[in-house]
Amino acid sequence: MDNQQKRTHILRGNIIYSVSPRNLVTKDRAFLVCADGICRGVFDTLQDAQNALSEARNTLPEQTGNTSMQPVADVPVEDFGDKLIIPGLVDLHLHAPQYAYRGLGMDMDLVDWLNNVTFPEEAKYAEITYAARAYDQFVSELQQTATTRMCVFGTIHPESTLLLARKLSEAGFGAYVGKVNMDRNAPESLCEESATASFTATMDYLRKFTFLRTQGKITDRVHPILTPRFIPSCSRELMEELGELARQQDLKVQSHLSESKREIEWVAELEPEAAFYGDCYAHAGMMGNPITSVMAHCIWSSPEEIQMMKDGGVFIAHCPQSNTNLASGIAPIRHYLEEELRLGLGTDIAGGFSRSVFRAMADAIQVSKLYFRHVDETKQPLTLSEAFYMGTMGGGAFFGKVGSFLDGYDFDAVVIDDSGLASVCSMNTAERIERTVYMPELCSIVAKYVAGERITWNS
Amino acid sequence: MDNQQKRTHILRGNIIYSVSPRNLVTKDRAFLVCADGICRGVFDTLQDAQNALSEARNTLPEQTGNTSMQPVADVPVEDFGDKLIIPGLVDLHLHAPQYAYRGLGMDMDLVDWLNNVTFPEEAKYAEITYAARAYDQFVSELQQTATTRMCVFGTIHPESTLLLARKLSEAGFGAYVGKVNMDRNAPESLCEESATASFTATMDYLRKFTFLRTQGKITDRVHPILTPRFIPSCSRELMEELGELARQQDLKVQSHLSESKREIEWVAELEPEAAFYGDCYAHAGMMGNPITSVMAHCIWSSPEEIQMMKDGGVFIAHCPQSNTNLASGIAPIRHYLEEELRLGLGTDIAGGFSRSVFRAMADAIQVSKLYFRHVDETKQPLTLSEAFYMGTMGGGAFFGKVGSFLDGYDFDAVVIDDSGLASVCSMNTAERIERTVYMPELCSIVAKYVAGERITWNS
Repeated sequence: MDNQQKRTHILRGNIIYSVSPRNLVTKDRAFLVCADGICRGVFDTLQDAQNALSEARNTLPEQTGNTSMQPVADVPVEDFGDKLIIPGLVDLHLHAPQYAYRGLGMDMDLVDWLNNVTFPEEAKYAEITYAARAYDQFVSELQQTATTRMCVFGTIHPESTLLLARKLSEAGFGAYVGKVNMDRNAPESLCEESATASFTATMDYLRKFTFLRTQGKITDRVHPILTPRFIPSCSRELMEELGELARQQDLKVQSHLSESKREIEWVAELEPEAAFYGDCYAHAGMMGNPITSVMAHCIWSSPEEIQMMKDGGVFIAHCPQSNTNLASGIAPIRHYLEEELRLGLGTDIAGGFSRSVFRAMADAIQVSKLYFRHVDETKQPLTLSEAFYMGTMGGGAFFGKVGSFLDGYDFDAVVIDDSGLASVCSMNTAERIERTVYMPELCSIVAKYVAGERITWNS
Repeated sequence: MDNQQKRTHILRGNIIYSVSPRNLVTKDRAFLVCADGICRGVFDTLQDAQNALSEARNTLPEQTGNTSMQPVADVPVEDFGDKLIIPGLVDLHLHAPQYAYRGLGMDMDLVDWLNNVTFPEEAKYAEITYAARAYDQFVSELQQTATTRMCVFGTIHPESTLLLARKLSEAGFGAYVGKVNMDRNAPESLCEESATASFTATMDYLRKFTFLRTQGKITDRVHPILTPRFIPSCSRELMEELGELARQQDLKVQSHLSESKREIEWVAELEPEAAFYGDCYAHAGMMGNPITSVMAHCIWSSPEEIQMMKDGGVFIAHCPQSNTNLASGIAPIRHYLEEELRLGLGTDIAGGFSRSVFRAMADAIQVSKLYFRHVDETKQPLTLSEAFYMGTMGGGAFFGKVGSFLDGYDFDAVVIDDSGLASVCSMNTAERIERTVYMPELCSIVAKYVAGERITWNS
């Protein structure tokens, strides 16, 4: 079977996907078409599905070795019966080296938690054998979730972070993987010696990343991303060098923004010339067009910061569980939706303890209800449709055309067995996906495709 | 093996239990002693454990057929190795007939949800065969959780609710099980014809309950409880009759109180003579000493209502997930702890979708952090220790001496395998129980004891 054949599918099942925040589509026992890794839509009949596949093939560029293309009628229907088929979920913000101790120290405040739990643990990733063990577990356990794409923080260590990228690649994920930069306000074991040292380590990371890709050890779905931890831990000199690098090499950027009030005050002290927190990133050319960046949290963003994110096409990674655990607060997501900002969801492991983007959807809805009740009764709670959109299509846009089953999207699909939720009540597909979002722990993942490739794993 | 022998145990493992809200004790590889269903404490050595067992036996009342008591040295140690052993969890508020559709309609507000989802479903329980199927699933799935005791609402139907009580009893649970009263403001299919009809149905329920107990079909750990749904659905006449019955037959009461602002306004319209919502229950003799009652929610209780609950020894069932899902708000639990009110946790299925009291603990901590951040920064978030207390000892007090491993407590114990949470980080017992509370779905229940009796089930 050649590569194109492997990435061509017709799946059948109960299909659910977003086409916009307000429009969550369900199609029962429908056919889902993937041609060479690209989704060609959802169809009611096999004939229509096959026609779509033929048409897609006619428009495919000629490729060497594709002369013996399998006839459309021979593409088998992978029939998943009554199971649910959804786009792969997108985790727009998480820290891989924090996975091993998620759910720990949740009674501490942010500063105590960083100093007592997070930093001592991240320092261990200087040792590649430790990183190998930890990242093996991280990747293999993430495979058992519905997540297919992620934006992930490593540590300051290039070699360990390259290992993380390789493991994610081998496991079939799509990912942006960042070596963290920290050249100030960090414990000695995690602080890079200077802006130059930090920059040089990043260059080293990027060079080796490219080398591994040319060696075929990292797929074209896994990319490096610039990852200044946050303004308090990155000097202006470092930020400016990274900004220049982002422009030169057309790199994306991930970081944190306006997570807590205390952090915002601290940034104001450190960078008195900045008009607001996000201005520090923008001034260094790390945020806003032409740079594609994703900022986690944005709970306490000022109107100016919000306007800048809107104008600059910045993605916001909403991490409701982490924002709750660290008592940071509730981000005004209804307002961001009204303003048509670009929004996705993050588990923010280990500010969040859960690795499930379904849980992030449920958490997003839940905290929005408390925001409505206790903060601003003009801001209606999020709906299931909106949360599902954020966890698929919304975050997926960071990766290109990802997170939906519309024609032309990368084919990321997850097949879900929700029989653990069966009861005396009969449920339609829309009801079943709602219950799956709230109780993913009672469902299991039956099959998973990323960019058309079927992913398998040992459970 | 006689009954007393069956209810005598020495367990070994990593033991965790509350002795107060602020004091969560952990003892590694310790011995936990149960003599004839009663906990005799936790000991570091087998010798001390056996001594405690001997002493307990010397103080036991002579019982017929106990002449051949097994020698203490022959009581085997049930060694659970590195596993965690905790008191059984207590669910102080849930609706059994809502289990089948939990996690559904969460985008609706309370009134729409009741009318479109809840009431049509509860009406089906008029039919005993439907109730049998639904309650079978409810009971068997609850068995797989760490819950050992519960206060549970049935429906208005005596026969179906008796069936629920029998099934809970057969499954080994400790429970208060209530036939619901509703004689106003309910859909026709769920509204009892008059106060008298409702009262008569309750008398019927109580009589048959007693009969089933005398037949040995309900254990002495399962009890009836008076269950007026809430003031809007119970006329004053009905409430007064039920209050009289509570006094005469020394019955406990469960209901709802001050869940939402709209509900409070509605009660004020319906009962203009009441000083505040809770006054309606108190006036009917359904709340406050000598009646033991548990009121779910109490989110918006006035200072007078809080004082009355304090003076009257009323239990509050805090249901953080339900209060979030229905956008009711966050109950001021830190204030209630400061006031030393009696507090437990409820899943409130299906206002809550989760059946896990661990999840209720985590939710309680989480919403308290948002309360701290967005409502009142003088009210510190709940700690793990406080949440664990509420889900065990706090709610357990409704059942007597239940929910701890202190000497003299009913022996409810749950053995937990948390190996699904193992990672490269080594964790002590306190850290492991924290992670279990946040991620119970990755743990499994290995063994369960209620009042000393080992419970088994088909998984």
